Amino acid sequence: MQKADGMRYAPKGEAKPVVKDGEFVFAAAALRHGHIYGMTNGLLEAGATLGWVYDTDPEELKRFCAAYPQAKVARSLDEILDDQSVRMVAAADVPCDRARLGLTVMDAGKDYFTDKTPFTTLEQVEAVRAKAANTGQKYMVYFSERLHSESSAYAGQLVEAGEIGRVLQVIGLGPHRLNAPSRPAWFFNHAQYGGILCDIGSHQIEQFLYYTGAKDAKVTHSQVANYNHPEYPELEDFGDAMLLADNGATNYFRVDWFTPGGLGCWGDGRLFLLGTKGYIEARKHINPGVDNRGDTLLCVNGDTERLVNVTGQVGFPFFGQMVLDCLNRTEKAMTQEHVLTVGRLCIEAQMGARKIISRP
Amino acid sequence: MQKADGMRYAPKGEAKPVVKDGEFVFAAAALRHGHIYGMTNGLLEAGATLGWVYDTDPEELKRFCAAYPQAKVARSLDEILDDQSVRMVAAADVPCDRARLGLTVMDAGKDYFTDKTPFTTLEQVEAVRAKAANTGQKYMVYFSERLHSESSAYAGQLVEAGEIGRVLQVIGLGPHRLNAPSRPAWFFNHAQYGGILCDIGSHQIEQFLYYTGAKDAKVTHSQVANYNHPEYPELEDFGDAMLLADNGATNYFRVDWFTPGGLGCWGDGRLFLLGTKGYIEARKHINPGVDNRGDTLLCVNGDTERLVNVTGQVGFPFFGQMVLDCLNRTEKAMTQEHVLTVGRLCIEAQMGARKIISRP
Repeated sequence: MQKADGMRYAPKGEAKPVVKDGEFVFAAAALRHGHIYGMTNGLLEAGATLGWVYDTDPEELKRFCAAYPQAKVARSLDEILDDQSVRMVAAADVPCDRARLGLTVMDAGKDYFTDKTPFTTLEQVEAVRAKAANTGQKYMVYFSERLHSESSAYAGQLVEAGEIGRVLQVIGLGPHRLNAPSRPAWFFNHAQYGGILCDIGSHQIEQFLYYTGAKDAKVTHSQVANYNHPEYPELEDFGDAMLLADNGATNYFRVDWFTPGGLGCWGDGRLFLLGTKGYIEARKHINPGVDNRGDTLLCVNGDTERLVNVTGQVGFPFFGQMVLDCLNRTEKAMTQEHVLTVGRLCIEAQMGARKIISRP
Repeated sequence: MQKADGMRYAPKGEAKPVVKDGEFVFAAAALRHGHIYGMTNGLLEAGATLGWVYDTDPEELKRFCAAYPQAKVARSLDEILDDQSVRMVAAADVPCDRARLGLTVMDAGKDYFTDKTPFTTLEQVEAVRAKAANTGQKYMVYFSERLHSESSAYAGQLVEAGEIGRVLQVIGLGPHRLNAPSRPAWFFNHAQYGGILCDIGSHQIEQFLYYTGAKDAKVTHSQVANYNHPEYPELEDFGDAMLLADNGATNYFRVDWFTPGGLGCWGDGRLFLLGTKGYIEARKHINPGVDNRGDTLLCVNGDTERLVNVTGQVGFPFFGQMVLDCLNRTEKAMTQEHVLTVGRLCIEAQMGARKIISRP
């Protein structure tokens, strides 16, 4: 049984280039989280050209270059920033450092594509808001659990087509395998990773706003716990929250680090969309007990129950849209306001979280 | 495709009598909700003897007697209460009237078995608490979504056996089909049905306390909405809540009346138990897109993923335990304190609920 590690989550899809070779050059930097591989795959499949890679860690560089031998190794970040042909820097820095790197990239007249979570403090959100306004550059985010998930993309298409009516509520379950020995030190440092709701909760809040079409929301309740990992005092192994959107739609999500060893992947992520005319469930990464494929989707409406696997059917439209947004200065893939709102809500959920005291 | 109606939910199981014929006589009364059929089936399978039935509605009486011809029709409730051989009255009155009937039954020296929800006001809870203390009689509740569900019973056995470690969180999804034309007038009258969190939410809160072994809890957030049924202004078609137990375990549940016509049963009820060593999902009434059987259960722990259907494997142990509790004056099936705590929490969730304003 394959036990994929979330840190190396890097789906591959069909190449659907939206640009010609060399038309959209990007660099990879700050290889602190394995998501950089998924980000790079997505950009390459959209036709982008990987020009450079930069990192201070020779091991990470070596691994990256083995996967993408076309990347030139830069001697410094400045070497990338000085290259006028580079339009975007993709990076997976330590969460607390993501905004700082983004500001530098944007100041150099390039768009920035960061791993989630985009921010760990409200000050970072405001600094990026100002920088985006002043420079016109983009601060885009790899919310992989929607953007790199075919069942999630398909769910969006079904909603768009009116298959379940108006979306009233989104429930997201985001369990992750801890695999503590594989984790870097920053993973266990609260100020660096930002807290569980801010970190892996960011996927969930992003999905909520996306599927409900909400522009903003309020966190109505949130809580975190370290139930079972006293050896990592700054780890939160559990968090959940409820949000209420400006259009009256609601959200509940749970994130945790309790994926057991027997599961055939890193996490049994689920998405439930409740609509006025039906509902959708996505089993994103595995259909547990049935098969190890991701992207099983259930759609029930007034007519029928439909359980389908959409692997290879939908692709990952986000990356091509983002590349075109960067070239055309449009916002079809994702608006800047959406990123800033999600980022703020993650931090508000985290800052306002009740700390659960466990009494076994 | 069979579209079972929740109002007529009446599972049948294998007869596992715990008493001899005539040893435990009960009566059925107040046939306002079809759950009385499930309650009666459960008692009969445990070996109880159906002595009487009483109702003011001749149509309901006729239907009940057709199903259970052994029941003598009483001319009044008093005829039942005066019969010294009757040990229990099972009833499914209108929610707001359940406590009043229970007090009368307990005063007559008999145990009471009511459909859920047990109470609609805190005054009722306190009156029953006092009556139970004064009379020593039992006020038991048919929480059908656990007690009459083999996957739910099996989940309890797995937890008991330590299969998933300590239960940290319970998520319950309790969608129901509205089927408005089939509903009586009281169903749309808030004071009578008690609100969605108090009514169908009671199953959920009961399950939370049961699976976590908690003695008490606090409602940390709750909300209700009428998203899509303006023609029934007192209906709440959506409600959800978070609770925090005295032992640090948490709960989220959602209940709603949005089961779409295409689903092969009245509701895709789910139960998720997150433990320190694994997790359980029960698909209680249907495995949607796969088959119309209830009681599919997923258990994932450190060793394996296991997806099983337990139909006919587990039975409904509650009813026999309750009959023996009544005879022996024990509390093995369910304690009185559990019932009172669940009832109070449902009402607190309901009274404290934020009313969501929907802005489509």
